[in-house]
Amino acid sequence: MDLKPTKPLSGFVELLPAQQRCFDACAGRMLNVLRGAGFSVLDLPAIERAEVLTDKDNWEEIETQMFLFQKGDTKMGLRYDGTVGLARYVAGHLNDLTFPFRAAQFSKRYRGERAQRGRYREFYQMDLDILGINSLSVNYDAEIIQVISRALDTVREFIGPACVHVGSRPFWDALFEYLKLTADQKKQVFVLIDKKDKMGDEDFAEGLHDALDNGEVEGRIKSVFSNGYEGFVGASPALDAAIAELTGFMETLRAIGVEKAELDLSITRGLAYYTGLVFEFKLTEHPELGTAAGGGRYADLAGNFSKTKIIGVGAAIGFSRIFWALLESGKIDVTRFSRPVAVAVLVMGNQNVSYAMRVADDLRAAGIATVTYLDTEKKFKNQIEYADKIAAPFSVIIGDEEVGNNSVALKDMTSGGQQQVSVQDLITILKK
Amino acid sequence: MDLKPTKPLSGFVELLPAQQRCFDACAGRMLNVLRGAGFSVLDLPAIERAEVLTDKDNWEEIETQMFLFQKGDTKMGLRYDGTVGLARYVAGHLNDLTFPFRAAQFSKRYRGERAQRGRYREFYQMDLDILGINSLSVNYDAEIIQVISRALDTVREFIGPACVHVGSRPFWDALFEYLKLTADQKKQVFVLIDKKDKMGDEDFAEGLHDALDNGEVEGRIKSVFSNGYEGFVGASPALDAAIAELTGFMETLRAIGVEKAELDLSITRGLAYYTGLVFEFKLTEHPELGTAAGGGRYADLAGNFSKTKIIGVGAAIGFSRIFWALLESGKIDVTRFSRPVAVAVLVMGNQNVSYAMRVADDLRAAGIATVTYLDTEKKFKNQIEYADKIAAPFSVIIGDEEVGNNSVALKDMTSGGQQQVSVQDLITILKK
Repeated sequence: MDLKPTKPLSGFVELLPAQQRCFDACAGRMLNVLRGAGFSVLDLPAIERAEVLTDKDNWEEIETQMFLFQKGDTKMGLRYDGTVGLARYVAGHLNDLTFPFRAAQFSKRYRGERAQRGRYREFYQMDLDILGINSLSVNYDAEIIQVISRALDTVREFIGPACVHVGSRPFWDALFEYLKLTADQKKQVFVLIDKKDKMGDEDFAEGLHDALDNGEVEGRIKSVFSNGYEGFVGASPALDAAIAELTGFMETLRAIGVEKAELDLSITRGLAYYTGLVFEFKLTEHPELGTAAGGGRYADLAGNFSKTKIIGVGAAIGFSRIFWALLESGKIDVTRFSRPVAVAVLVMGNQNVSYAMRVADDLRAAGIATVTYLDTEKKFKNQIEYADKIAAPFSVIIGDEEVGNNSVALKDMTSGGQQQVSVQDLITILKK
Repeated sequence: MDLKPTKPLSGFVELLPAQQRCFDACAGRMLNVLRGAGFSVLDLPAIERAEVLTDKDNWEEIETQMFLFQKGDTKMGLRYDGTVGLARYVAGHLNDLTFPFRAAQFSKRYRGERAQRGRYREFYQMDLDILGINSLSVNYDAEIIQVISRALDTVREFIGPACVHVGSRPFWDALFEYLKLTADQKKQVFVLIDKKDKMGDEDFAEGLHDALDNGEVEGRIKSVFSNGYEGFVGASPALDAAIAELTGFMETLRAIGVEKAELDLSITRGLAYYTGLVFEFKLTEHPELGTAAGGGRYADLAGNFSKTKIIGVGAAIGFSRIFWALLESGKIDVTRFSRPVAVAVLVMGNQNVSYAMRVADDLRAAGIATVTYLDTEKKFKNQIEYADKIAAPFSVIIGDEEVGNNSVALKDMTSGGQQQVSVQDLITILKK
């Protein structure tokens, strides 16, 4: 019989135990920060109706981007982000939730596209959203950034420091209006700005020229990328309002302890539903990884689901992408996570197994992570090798003598030193 | 425009925040027990190749049971259990893992069948497996049961006590051999035994008669359900061996502190791959929920993936099914989880927002869960209502006066008492 493949499908990641423990520890620390800031961690279904996932009715087109299937008459698919499900959930529970409602998610997302290097078809994102009914202060935008900064700080030993870049959608809207762009030109230029990083300056200039064919206007747009908003102070009330909001916001960030923050009008967060301030976190030491987290303000989260206007500010931390990339390039050291337990319990003679398992049970109940080796017919050499391999700092060895005098032999696996102790003393020693 | 539906698809569950916090707390406690016993928690892809998910090549038939899709030439689908992925993973990482390898999983599983009451199309299971190469002591079967008992104990306040019922596949194999059943009869009778609970005694007897047409043999099989193994001691060496293994195992369970354990030969765990002892945990106070966890010993985990023989004992805890059912019937009280934070920070006047957000940041850094209310244009009444609604035990109120003398007003939301304190004292008071 042919053996089946043991590798996961391309675009899917699975970690070794120590790597997974490191990943889980990082996620746990970040989620703790979110919980400590009052975010409710939601766990929504991974499968949604196709009509929830997309407004497009071109099934064949979206099928290339998502994992879709049909059950009976119902078309459905795996979520590609956390926002669609959140919109549906909040709209369906308006009376069950207290607003402003802080929602967090840490869940798997799926992209049905062809797998490419660095592009995953299954990945985790950690989402934060603060939602208000009809109104929501821009102060919450600052809080989202503050909380993400604190969350990323908890895993700084692995990813290094992060810096948030803050942009403004209203600035660009006001600028396009001021420069008298047509609706069509606005759309084209916005697409160009969004892709500028990937295109390079030359292609960007060429694209602008194709779209506008107006050297002066092209120049003024390009000036934003060298001089920021400077050329536009006082140009129009809308521009001034956008500039005032953004500069005031940067001051707030500094005042609330977000140390690494930059005003950066090139940040636009694509064509998505953002309508206000937008931001991206980048890793200072790993610029090649692009955006570690991004988000912004949106004016209407759940218009497809409810007549109630839900305003929000939200962000997604692409933590698994960052973590996996750093792991692959050898920049994350998981050595510290290679020890699953504090003690290995080894047993000589099957007649002593129950005693050994009671000792292990007592140690675990005392909060000491303990693994047993219960293949009693194996030689002592094999048993101690096992304790070595799992890097247990201590071994507890139990044979006839120990059971006879109600004790254990405690071996320090580093020094090799061994002593006979009672179970109670064992717990006291290991608790230290 | 028509609004889209806000309910999740049938067969999918989503919880309200307090319910979710309770669920997460329970899962966290149980996973801690597993980690403390040396289990490595794995996170495997939810999507596998169709050939990994099934040996059947009748695509249309399995499509009714699973969520399947095709990308390019590759057929794939969502996992329906944790075992297929584990087998693939372990076979692919034989040299990366230390054996006996203890694997745990807590992940979503999918069933593509039509949704029915009490049947979920997306659900969590918590899996535990201990795997050995070529051999694995039956002592590990006892450990799996011990660890599950301890895990279920941590959530006893919600689900009540559990009792493990232990059966033996070798007993039935030996009995069928002793009673000289044909291969075909063995299969038929085994299916009947597996379905006995659902069929009722009368249908079971009728089924036995149809399969065997031998009153004496039928009677002896039925006797197992009233008198256990008693009529078969000494009947054959294979029967004696099976009985000795099982009775010895029950003694070990008692000796290692598994208090609620019963020998129960009616437990067979269906037609699956089990080859040794099998067991099911049932909730003493909720018999209507059936099996809370079940598992057993299997002789060959990964024969489809590797020529190395991987022997294991494994179990799955169907925790989400149990939890959701108890929640739905009002038997789980989540009141205790309705308080997301310890403190609500309220702000009078937008000029004081940065100060308030720094206070919140300090509280969170000190480990005190803190939520802010930053819509400063809202009346004080709205703000205190918010603090009430989220059931915050304390409010911290910040206005011009507090900012002026570098303090906060701390309000006890239960007593209504209020005092002016410094931020440092605030932390000290709330830490108590």
